[in-house]
Amino acid sequence: MPAPGPVHEALAALPLVDHHCHGAVTADLAPGQFESLITEGEAWPGVSTFDSPVGVAVRRHCAPLLDLPRHAPPADYLARRSELGWREVNRRFLTAAGAEVFCVDTGYAPHPVTSPAELAEAAGAAAFEVVRLEQVAEAVAARGVEAGEYAARFRAAAEEAVRRPGVVAVKSVAAYRTGFALAPERPTDAEVTEAARHRLAHGGRLTDPVLVRHLLWTAVDLGLPLQLHSGFGDADVRLHRADPALLTDWLHLTAGTIPVLLLHCWPYQRQAAYLATVFEHVYLDVGLALHYTGPARSRAVLEEALEITPFRKLLYSSDAYGVAEFHHLGALSFRQGLAGLLQARVDADELSLPDALRIAAWTGRDNAHRLYGFPVNDPARD
Amino acid sequence: MPAPGPVHEALAALPLVDHHCHGAVTADLAPGQFESLITEGEAWPGVSTFDSPVGVAVRRHCAPLLDLPRHAPPADYLARRSELGWREVNRRFLTAAGAEVFCVDTGYAPHPVTSPAELAEAAGAAAFEVVRLEQVAEAVAARGVEAGEYAARFRAAAEEAVRRPGVVAVKSVAAYRTGFALAPERPTDAEVTEAARHRLAHGGRLTDPVLVRHLLWTAVDLGLPLQLHSGFGDADVRLHRADPALLTDWLHLTAGTIPVLLLHCWPYQRQAAYLATVFEHVYLDVGLALHYTGPARSRAVLEEALEITPFRKLLYSSDAYGVAEFHHLGALSFRQGLAGLLQARVDADELSLPDALRIAAWTGRDNAHRLYGFPVNDPARD
Amino acid sequence: MPAPGPVHEALAALPLVDHHCHGAVTADLAPGQFESLITEGEAWPGVSTFDSPVGVAVRRHCAPLLDLPRHAPPADYLARRSELGWREVNRRFLTAAGAEVFCVDTGYAPHPVTSPAELAEAAGAAAFEVVRLEQVAEAVAARGVEAGEYAARFRAAAEEAVRRPGVVAVKSVAAYRTGFALAPERPTDAEVTEAARHRLAHGGRLTDPVLVRHLLWTAVDLGLPLQLHSGFGDADVRLHRADPALLTDWLHLTAGTIPVLLLHCWPYQRQAAYLATVFEHVYLDVGLALHYTGPARSRAVLEEALEITPFRKLLYSSDAYGVAEFHHLGALSFRQGLAGLLQARVDADELSLPDALRIAAWTGRDNAHRLYGFPVNDPARD
Repeated sequence: MPAPGPVHEALAALPLVDHHCHGAVTADLAPGQFESLITEGEAWPGVSTFDSPVGVAVRRHCAPLLDLPRHAPPADYLARRSELGWREVNRRFLTAAGAEVFCVDTGYAPHPVTSPAELAEAAGAAAFEVVRLEQVAEAVAARGVEAGEYAARFRAAAEEAVRRPGVVAVKSVAAYRTGFALAPERPTDAEVTEAARHRLAHGGRLTDPVLVRHLLWTAVDLGLPLQLHSGFGDADVRLHRADPALLTDWLHLTAGTIPVLLLHCWPYQRQAAYLATVFEHVYLDVGLALHYTGPARSRAVLEEALEITPFRKLLYSSDAYGVAEFHHLGALSFRQGLAGLLQARVDADELSLPDALRIAAWTGRDNAHRLYGFPVNDPARD
Repeated sequence: MPAPGPVHEALAALPLVDHHCHGAVTADLAPGQFESLITEGEAWPGVSTFDSPVGVAVRRHCAPLLDLPRHAPPADYLARRSELGWREVNRRFLTAAGAEVFCVDTGYAPHPVTSPAELAEAAGAAAFEVVRLEQVAEAVAARGVEAGEYAARFRAAAEEAVRRPGVVAVKSVAAYRTGFALAPERPTDAEVTEAARHRLAHGGRLTDPVLVRHLLWTAVDLGLPLQLHSGFGDADVRLHRADPALLTDWLHLTAGTIPVLLLHCWPYQRQAAYLATVFEHVYLDVGLALHYTGPARSRAVLEEALEITPFRKLLYSSDAYGVAEFHHLGALSFRQGLAGLLQARVDADELSLPDALRIAAWTGRDNAHRLYGFPVNDPARD
Repeated sequence: MPAPGPVHEALAALPLVDHHCHGAVTADLAPGQFESLITEGEAWPGVSTFDSPVGVAVRRHCAPLLDLPRHAPPADYLARRSELGWREVNRRFLTAAGAEVFCVDTGYAPHPVTSPAELAEAAGAAAFEVVRLEQVAEAVAARGVEAGEYAARFRAAAEEAVRRPGVVAVKSVAAYRTGFALAPERPTDAEVTEAARHRLAHGGRLTDPVLVRHLLWTAVDLGLPLQLHSGFGDADVRLHRADPALLTDWLHLTAGTIPVLLLHCWPYQRQAAYLATVFEHVYLDVGLALHYTGPARSRAVLEEALEITPFRKLLYSSDAYGVAEFHHLGALSFRQGLAGLLQARVDADELSLPDALRIAAWTGRDNAHRLYGFPVNDPARD
């Protein structure tokens, strides 16, 4: 392991923008609950989810923040976590993340989790909100709607949702619902009405391809940046249908409209990099993968994500959900992975140090500011 | 190259379970025959198959076991191999593999090869059998069967086959026959009968999608672990249809039933890792790729396979066929690749040494014992 | 960074065959024009295309050839480039590339670019021509043709084109037009006539699947090596449809006919490697990716491309277009990436030095000579 250099120091000190994350649980967790929150699968009988790359990374990089030795055993870790209580645990990890801004997807919360304001307060940072459009559409359906009115009602509800103070982006989980192999064109009013008639009679999840396409085009109308889950996720995803390359036709049609942010992307980070290289409005991150691989592999994933990508096109996100360990681990994995990548290029004289420092600041913070235009009075940047 | 550390020593000494391999040829091989056995392609005129990563690895890591210098020329290698004779050659490589258990797929043998018992004896190890279900189904068809009786006859033949002593698993090469983009549901009796009527009239290869689906569901009924060829293979495969992510719907339907072992997986090891992460019953290995890449790249392939995979979900296999060099090279590539990966993490303090040693033992041996429950009185483990 | 070893020295001195490239612009470029030529996307307002891996590589590795310091600022670089003028700039980079042969695709030239002869003269090398078949077919259509005569006229025009002195190969951009998920069989005369009737009435781009298949089969009839764009390219490509694994059925049908050269391939270099391993007539390169990633990542891409590939199956190409910087950067990235890969294996004693030197010469030069049989009196090789 080479000695950390100036890029490591700069990235360690950089206030990050975590442009896509979720809340941290606001309750003490039983051991089984914690174990089920540190996997995209489930906690299976007879196998500890600690026995995984992310479990090893938690014991290595989170235990010291709970005053435990590095690599502490899971039982000690869980006992100490309980002893400190969720408020103190959240405070420690959220401040350790060193982010100045969190953009919080508020549309997925099977557990009681921090609101953006609560997350901001615990972290000593600013927080903004990302509106999940499927939740808006499903709420419209759940309240009961005539098929012919669905499009207008969804549009109105989405417009109302994004007018809430602090909303900076919308998000879609189309990757989960239909995958990206959709017809790219905006569906006609008649198509939407017909689909709404068949599929929305009784509420439930939005999985109809016409309605998912309609949702994506409604996002274009809203005018805010659109975050798109891509690639890796839980068992609900069909990974091969979440390859962002499948969006290419839609990206051609939406060129010149809203920014499109491809989230996570693993293992299709190279496909996402291609799209971010050839489409002005496309950006990517490798969130989620960062804490699941841990610092041991975050550099390798970032190397692929940055193989051809213009440096203004990569952003940082943690995609942390539930345990504040992930807000910290994501940040740490990003800082160490990117620093390793950039410092090695400086050491090989492939990159100048000033360029490396600029790339670090862009990807960790400035690209997000440029894109979202946060209405933030940010002392950390002055 | 860093000096090997304690993880290398531990893995060098670990008795492996090679949970998927084939027999070694029981005949002396002419040079052209040997060359055609060390490629997934063929021996082409004017080009030696030694001029490949696997050929270089054979000359480097197998030549010394034949008392030749490292990197010996192909002609010397082949001459010495002939001089020693196939029995001695097999004995040397099979013992050098250092496996305590081999699970042998007996359903593919275009050459005369060792039976599991012969392999076991030459290696000084235990051997168990894996029943290839396509062979069973094709034998049923070849013997002549009424369409309406095909399902019952295949089921009975498979049940009889797995009752043979030493059978621990079944295997399917559905990836070769139809690929994995199959309808996931169990076909109805009527569908199976109809398909059998059309396709089985004259025997031959089982390539009908309904019958392949029926075979996979029959495997579920049998209750034994199911090994599934995935990814890399010979020219009969359509690589993109052998991406295991295509199995996701079927894996949802079979959750809670039998263990499903994704074999080989390259270049879709990350897709396989995703499935092993989110499905309790899914496991993977990167067999075949290990000896074809050799120790020079086995670590890189393992790094991707283990990026997010729970440590109880990766197994070792060689997928060696024909030349016993591959039983040895697979084992060596696995030991060196995994040791390099784990030792580097220990050196970087990303992983504790006890954890590294546990992960090495799990993946090289214990995960297989846990999964297959070998009825083995194994002195090597006491 | 380890000290360069003898493999680096050998590769630095090796006269390369760049078996697929384009001409260099024969005009002075305004800054915006240069910026738009160093991306597969476009030059977007407010973002410099220098802020990318390739931009960094240009400043690092091309600036010194213009008498500037390493990592010179873009403005200095562009000013100096203008000062020297396009002839001198082309001369410097084309000679620095160190190629003895360039094979030039003359079918894509939205800018005024060097002819093969002009490229050869500026580089002090030999140049041969690659005929782009889509251009031939579209010219036939543009001149007006009865549907029933299209096949014969295209065939005659292609035969005429490849009889021109110096033509050594044909090329298809089927990957761009339809992708590779085509029916593999040769279309019937009736199908071709029918497709020609519908699609060729008014000229324009050849995008009909039947006519694209017909073009590929016409290439087989011509008997010359066929270069196939695969994977990475500009926004016109649908990356997932440019996965060369999709060609497998067609490769089965064309086995034993012409050599098929998969160009670029990124991010599907492993899929291409599989095809080159199992089909005698398939070869690959990772052109285009080499200069877009730069020397900082070319080794990583080559490592994947060579994971299983027989050493007689990998070739070098730059796929440079427009700026002669790319002819140089491609060569440099190849030399440094391959040298790093091979020297590390020599240092780890995975490969002997003589073998490493042979592999370097094969992939950089000799495989192309063997394949194309250049009618070249080549003093550099004697």
